[in-house]
Amino acid sequence: MQRIAVFGATGSIGASALDVIARHPERYRATVLAAGNRVDALIKLCRVHRPEHAAVADEAAYAALRDGLRDAGLATRAHAGLASMESLAASDACDTVVAAIVGAAGLSSTLAAAHAGKRLLLANKESLVLAGELLMHEVAASGSRLIPIDSEHNAIFQCLPGGRTDDVARIILTASGGPFRGRSRAELAGVTPAQAVAHPKWSMGPKISVDSATLMNKGLEVIEAHHLFGMTGERIDVLVHPQSLVHSLVEFVDGSTLAQLGLPDMRTSLAVGLAWPDRVASGVAGLDLIAQGGKLEFEPPDLDAFPCLRLAFEALATGGTAPASLNALNEEAVSAFLQGRIGFLDIPALVEDGLTALPSARAESLDVLHAADQAARRHANAAISRLN
Amino acid sequence: MQRIAVFGATGSIGASALDVIARHPERYRATVLAAGNRVDALIKLCRVHRPEHAAVADEAAYAALRDGLRDAGLATRAHAGLASMESLAASDACDTVVAAIVGAAGLSSTLAAAHAGKRLLLANKESLVLAGELLMHEVAASGSRLIPIDSEHNAIFQCLPGGRTDDVARIILTASGGPFRGRSRAELAGVTPAQAVAHPKWSMGPKISVDSATLMNKGLEVIEAHHLFGMTGERIDVLVHPQSLVHSLVEFVDGSTLAQLGLPDMRTSLAVGLAWPDRVASGVAGLDLIAQGGKLEFEPPDLDAFPCLRLAFEALATGGTAPASLNALNEEAVSAFLQGRIGFLDIPALVEDGLTALPSARAESLDVLHAADQAARRHANAAISRLN
Repeated sequence: MQRIAVFGATGSIGASALDVIARHPERYRATVLAAGNRVDALIKLCRVHRPEHAAVADEAAYAALRDGLRDAGLATRAHAGLASMESLAASDACDTVVAAIVGAAGLSSTLAAAHAGKRLLLANKESLVLAGELLMHEVAASGSRLIPIDSEHNAIFQCLPGGRTDDVARIILTASGGPFRGRSRAELAGVTPAQAVAHPKWSMGPKISVDSATLMNKGLEVIEAHHLFGMTGERIDVLVHPQSLVHSLVEFVDGSTLAQLGLPDMRTSLAVGLAWPDRVASGVAGLDLIAQGGKLEFEPPDLDAFPCLRLAFEALATGGTAPASLNALNEEAVSAFLQGRIGFLDIPALVEDGLTALPSARAESLDVLHAADQAARRHANAAISRLN
Repeated sequence: MQRIAVFGATGSIGASALDVIARHPERYRATVLAAGNRVDALIKLCRVHRPEHAAVADEAAYAALRDGLRDAGLATRAHAGLASMESLAASDACDTVVAAIVGAAGLSSTLAAAHAGKRLLLANKESLVLAGELLMHEVAASGSRLIPIDSEHNAIFQCLPGGRTDDVARIILTASGGPFRGRSRAELAGVTPAQAVAHPKWSMGPKISVDSATLMNKGLEVIEAHHLFGMTGERIDVLVHPQSLVHSLVEFVDGSTLAQLGLPDMRTSLAVGLAWPDRVASGVAGLDLIAQGGKLEFEPPDLDAFPCLRLAFEALATGGTAPASLNALNEEAVSAFLQGRIGFLDIPALVEDGLTALPSARAESLDVLHAADQAARRHANAAISRLN
């Protein structure tokens, strides 16, 4: 019996993980459910899955969680705060951690799970973009098994049996191209937030939808792939694939390319992460290529219209704190765009300006990364103020 | 150092194998070269690769081979006849056998290599279509590693790390569709042998080109896949894919599909077979999807226009000697078609007639299979005579 902690249980990845877990009660049990601050949703999940522990990141929500669990007649123990979440991630309560809490709360519990040698199903982007070297160091030191859940990285993981990358010529991340695929740079100037968050294939939050529209999301995935698979940026390519059925490809030195395909449903990645090297039913139907139109198309990304992808490759080549700066600059710019304070093309302009202006240091600790993150946010916000 | 016997050295697969071997003199050495009867071509290869042994199937060619090797100043020992080829395949002269001799000569040496536990790079179709159960039994008993070289089966092999098939929902063989893809049954009635042998993607001999045009080639591959991967016909599908870049796909129970892609060059499969689980350079360039047109298309096979594919599935479902009958009926029909004695649509008609008329027995020995083969050929030739 695999005992699973789901961090980010109330989000969409958490729901997908719990769906797969519930399909295999003989193999899996959700023993820890953790969320940010959605106490009611968490208690509802506890009624269904009856975990041993439930936790919220928000310490102020502790009493509500404790009382709610008690009123529901559950034996589930309540916890609150980042420190208790880190403890749970590293504790005997679980041997597998689904790391799907976004942001810094996700980072610390992810690192704790890696340090403790847990099987780690990683969906927390910050862990790799900000702290990729630290995380991969923890994974290597503890012997933890890290399986990425993001569909692109999970695809590459599946194409690399045994995790060997010395025989890999390059990895190719696919991108849907976002809602503005095919538009020129000039045509993108007047794009509104409402247009930017209407992603054609995946239903996502506003921040990641804008990242998909600028291709920064793919740029961040390039940085993640670098850490996950130990590949330099020169061996990572991006292809736009509007059907979003081929999730990524790996080209080997013998001229062979392996690709992973499937319907866009996170339960496949989560089933892979839970069962690997076995496979278990995920509730996701197999891909019927004919029913999906019988056509898979690929085109090169337009780096003139979507410079964020180029900037991510540049930050990766610079290394050190540059990817953390890229991420912070982008977060602030996207936030300002969503508030209507800057235009769509100001996003890459602000990121490029910040990357040029900010120094890059060695990413030797979380403190150094945190300082770079803060400096980038200050720089971005000063620039945003000048535009208003 | 891996010592390799290349059976079928003077053919196109032999040439591809020797090309890959010569690229890695630190890993591979061709110690045995064997061919049917092309003595001059074999001696030419011996000058380049300096094997320990050279063999021809044709016993009458022994003196020419021996004298030719001597005149070339080579220490290579000459052999002739099927029995000596079987001995070489099983001998200490090699630990890997590339089985690329067509027909019965290939079958006996392939079985000998499997029995002796050699790593077996299998390109001899007869070994699986006629004697699949016997061959797989020898492989299992000796612990031989069997790696199929045919691009479709090699693709499936690559998509099944560890060879596990219990988590496979289905395998999907791709087919180029041949030169007559898109034509209706009525439009195929007047097809000539010259039209049928003009294959759009691969350069092949006339028999296999006609099999590609009728889709019987894909039907035989379905039967091979059944034996190689232990899958019933219900779990094997065929998709027409005119670009011939996706060589096959495997769908797993979790909704994930893996596909293998590449340029059409047998050296990739041979490099996989030689090096697996490593990968070595094969001389084949990686697949550039954009340069190849950026589009992969799939469509269902037209079983009305190309009934040979349906007949192969039916023979597989019948089992026993039925696939051997199918193969023999088809060989005789294709031969008559290439001689201009029957029409293109007579090929499936003759095969169907024979499968209906001939009894199927358990394929318990090579003798039983041989008898079924001979009975099918007699039946086909009687039917061909009636058409003339």
